[in-house]
Amino acid sequence: MMMENKMDFEQWLKNKKDIIDHWLKELLPGRKEFPEKIHEAMYYSIFAGGKRIRPILSILTAEILGYNDEIVKKPACALEMIHTYSLIHDDLPAMDDDDFRRGHPTNHKVYGEDIAILAGDALLTEAFYILSQLKSDKLPEILRIIALSSSSRGMVGGQAIDIIQTNNPTDINLLKKMHARKTGALLTAPIECAAVLCGEKNTDNFRELGDNIGMLFQITDDILDIRGNEAELGKPIGSDMSLGKSTFVSLLGIEKSEKEAEKYFKSAIKSLHRINVKNNEAVKRFEELIRFIHDRSH
Amino acid sequence: MMMENKMDFEQWLKNKKDIIDHWLKELLPGRKEFPEKIHEAMYYSIFAGGKRIRPILSILTAEILGYNDEIVKKPACALEMIHTYSLIHDDLPAMDDDDFRRGHPTNHKVYGEDIAILAGDALLTEAFYILSQLKSDKLPEILRIIALSSSSRGMVGGQAIDIIQTNNPTDINLLKKMHARKTGALLTAPIECAAVLCGEKNTDNFRELGDNIGMLFQITDDILDIRGNEAELGKPIGSDMSLGKSTFVSLLGIEKSEKEAEKYFKSAIKSLHRINVKNNEAVKRFEELIRFIHDRSH
Repeated sequence: MMMENKMDFEQWLKNKKDIIDHWLKELLPGRKEFPEKIHEAMYYSIFAGGKRIRPILSILTAEILGYNDEIVKKPACALEMIHTYSLIHDDLPAMDDDDFRRGHPTNHKVYGEDIAILAGDALLTEAFYILSQLKSDKLPEILRIIALSSSSRGMVGGQAIDIIQTNNPTDINLLKKMHARKTGALLTAPIECAAVLCGEKNTDNFRELGDNIGMLFQITDDILDIRGNEAELGKPIGSDMSLGKSTFVSLLGIEKSEKEAEKYFKSAIKSLHRINVKNNEAVKRFEELIRFIHDRSH
Repeated sequence: MMMENKMDFEQWLKNKKDIIDHWLKELLPGRKEFPEKIHEAMYYSIFAGGKRIRPILSILTAEILGYNDEIVKKPACALEMIHTYSLIHDDLPAMDDDDFRRGHPTNHKVYGEDIAILAGDALLTEAFYILSQLKSDKLPEILRIIALSSSSRGMVGGQAIDIIQTNNPTDINLLKKMHARKTGALLTAPIECAAVLCGEKNTDNFRELGDNIGMLFQITDDILDIRGNEAELGKPIGSDMSLGKSTFVSLLGIEKSEKEAEKYFKSAIKSLHRINVKNNEAVKRFEELIRFIHDRSH
């Protein structure tokens, strides 16, 4: 990838991030609304520097299908809130016990464990409140996709497997099963929701694209946990391994993990090209995003 | 109230409870579904002996309006799941740190704090998954009512006020504001949802009924915290007071609290009679339920 192109993509990414931040501010309850402390805690984690990958996946999917990003505004923001709540709860002392996230103190370090638990609960609930305002006959299907991908058969189920497997021997199949839920479900949902809202009847190709991106994302995450730069990553290096958790790197080694990442990268690009697209400019951007996930250093 | 009547009401209550338990089993994912531990933890708290007051309020509202209980099945169960999740999180060591609930060890005592946090998250999420299956053009309104009543402006907001006011001086107005959210919101929502599903356009009277029941419920709860029988209550007596929390009893004393309870009891009966009912048998049952909440010893 040429440097020029890269600059261009990063600027594009920043513009999208700004749009999403603007949407989130518009859709969340006021930061100073009563009771203030809970709303402050919600804002703190929502605006703590996330990359907004999930809403961007929704936007790009709408764009390759020839639609404007506005069509995915509510589900995209709902999914970002659900993702943020999952990080707040995951960082709690009873879970991963992390003090830092994206270079900032974690929610419970700032607001206390009790408010952090509630801020997570509130963000999850708010996501569904926002969906109630989606003026679309697709609402039941969107609600089904988002609730299922976040549920005990989706993301929360993945977290539970993660807890059960910590300090227990894990094989690569269970690890993949865990990540398909823990990380994959919330990366597939934004793509599937966008496809449904843009009128796609068969979403198989979209889900396949999401599944490949999910696995790619998780493997590069595991590699970064070992190889990353602590300052760029915003959390200590090797933190997953030191928690006694199995990772792609601990089970396969770095070299094989990189090959796995390469495999899912290629599969994601293939899935993307299986979709009947309306906007080739947007497809180029989508490819750049997949490459960005593959190449990212933080 | 004559003894004969009371027996009759308790049998009626038991029958409704059985129907609701049956619904919940039908709507929840399987207890043995993968990953098993999280589903077991969800079942444990859902079937830990709750009185099912919230679903019963939905059923009674449908019945006084001349409808069958089936019409409220999904929102009633969703609200019971949300109520249960709020108890699991409320009992956590970082919150009220309770070891017992309804005479059984609390969720985190059995499954560990990490799984308990996730079981709460999963029940909240499952509630919205169940709503996605509600085949009704009223879905957006039902979703709005349930999400808002559980949100940072509803139940979770009430929990946040509770935390902030612990060990801080509180006046009776802030206490009422807290309880309207913490307890009241999830007692009003089942009544309002039922009214909407039964085609009521103006739900003011229904919300007023719910608000009165909510306040009545909380005051009797505070009285029970002092007066109750530990065995019947299933948790230690005086546990709220010993946590440094203000209660109606700590602010007003027992006698004035009982007068307040009486006041909300009468207001609830009045609100009930302001509703244009279709089924007088059901109204009698509704009155008995309100009396039951007023007279309960556990």
